Amino acid sequence: MLWLPDELTAPATGRLSGRAAVVDVLRATSTVATALAHGAEGVVPVPDVEEARALARRLELDGHRRPLLGGERQAVRPAGFDLGNSPLEYGPEIVAGRLVVLTTTNGTRAFSLCAQAMGLPTGWLAPAAGTDGEIAAAALVNGPAVAQWLAEAPDRRVTVVCAGTEGRVSLEDVACAGLLAQRVAAAWGNDVTLTDGAQAAIQLYQAHADELAALLRSTRHGARLLQLGFAEDLAYCARVGLHRVVPVYRSGRLVPLARKEA
Amino acid sequence: MLWLPDELTAPATGRLSGRAAVVDVLRATSTVATALAHGAEGVVPVPDVEEARALARRLELDGHRRPLLGGERQAVRPAGFDLGNSPLEYGPEIVAGRLVVLTTTNGTRAFSLCAQAMGLPTGWLAPAAGTDGEIAAAALVNGPAVAQWLAEAPDRRVTVVCAGTEGRVSLEDVACAGLLAQRVAAAWGNDVTLTDGAQAAIQLYQAHADELAALLRSTRHGARLLQLGFAEDLAYCARVGLHRVVPVYRSGRLVPLARKEA
Repeated sequence: MLWLPDELTAPATGRLSGRAAVVDVLRATSTVATALAHGAEGVVPVPDVEEARALARRLELDGHRRPLLGGERQAVRPAGFDLGNSPLEYGPEIVAGRLVVLTTTNGTRAFSLCAQAMGLPTGWLAPAAGTDGEIAAAALVNGPAVAQWLAEAPDRRVTVVCAGTEGRVSLEDVACAGLLAQRVAAAWGNDVTLTDGAQAAIQLYQAHADELAALLRSTRHGARLLQLGFAEDLAYCARVGLHRVVPVYRSGRLVPLARKEA
Repeated sequence: MLWLPDELTAPATGRLSGRAAVVDVLRATSTVATALAHGAEGVVPVPDVEEARALARRLELDGHRRPLLGGERQAVRPAGFDLGNSPLEYGPEIVAGRLVVLTTTNGTRAFSLCAQAMGLPTGWLAPAAGTDGEIAAAALVNGPAVAQWLAEAPDRRVTVVCAGTEGRVSLEDVACAGLLAQRVAAAWGNDVTLTDGAQAAIQLYQAHADELAALLRSTRHGARLLQLGFAEDLAYCARVGLHRVVPVYRSGRLVPLARKEA
């Protein structure tokens, strides 16, 4: 359990194996889960706005259909983008069958560092059929499904990485990580070695499990989104288990786990 | 409230001002508080064993009394050192009037990053009479005294930095940070803006306030020390408010705050 992506590069962390989940509840991983649950072909997380635009152009030149551009900077949609970072914008009528290139401040960096710690390729490659990694995108809206997938890790080695906000701990991510850790531990009959961060996250999740919507409004990032008029997003992002999708990271993009893979 | 020193270099953190406390309950800051409470002239935290030896030689060449060398690597006293990193070794009969050069794995790095984030000099300089910084060493044994000093920060800007263990979150540091944050907030009539990390730490502290000794034994670092035979250290480090000393960081060394300064 990593409270911040920086812990991925800590001497005590070492190389990751098994299955990992990246958590960025407000709002990147909530948006990824929603887009894939609504039929998007895949979501490519990229670190910046220019790279998102360049990737869209390259795909069109290669004869692909132009992908949807989504994301935010300071919670606002960049010029020329199709979509912001609100999961409510990613309805089936918009995203079904489409590839989405998503640039967000914190989530992308967490995926990239996590893939590096697993020794996986991080750049965009041609969509690959094979499995080259075991990283999923988790939010409260798809937490139970991701927890089940984590619990089925062949060697029972599981890592949860909180994206945080600009390098600082985010309580909403920690609470979601606590939900994942608690469910994985329960699935294993609590026969599990928890890190200090995991112990702490489970305790915080349990303290707030009945009032997650209130918790999301009380965090720094949540309060800022509330001021910007995103109250509906906060209510939506607090809905535990709304989707069953497990977005898995394959060759630099997130695609829905095929049911037989689970 | 920073759960890890790495947060000091996060874009969202920026330059620190006001007063800060560095927390490394097992065992660096518990040892610093004990040494100063028992009359040591000062404690110089240094990052490695060789630098500790070199500094001791340089002080002797300059005509100073040879300082005591203390510290650990993997919880064990380095060859030729006078003392390990157990606070129980730092009795008044050993340390009164002496300068201690202390090298520890996690605490030293936290002090150094914190001083950098405050724009303070970090290297060893000649002992200076003036005040050039506002960083204290906090542990459970001197937590109440440090909390009072933090609460008296002129501009009410307070930062608590958990040292962690080899780059990972340590629950014992977070619990101590929660004690500090709760007491500072209470001193200000709870008229305070808490970061997500501070909110979470206060909740964790409150959940364990009545069983801190048990908490220390249950953390990763605590369990390792227990295996190595340091059960007495754990019991000692859990004794809240045993000392009234506030060790402040001045020109690269920790000295007891003079009473009139508080």
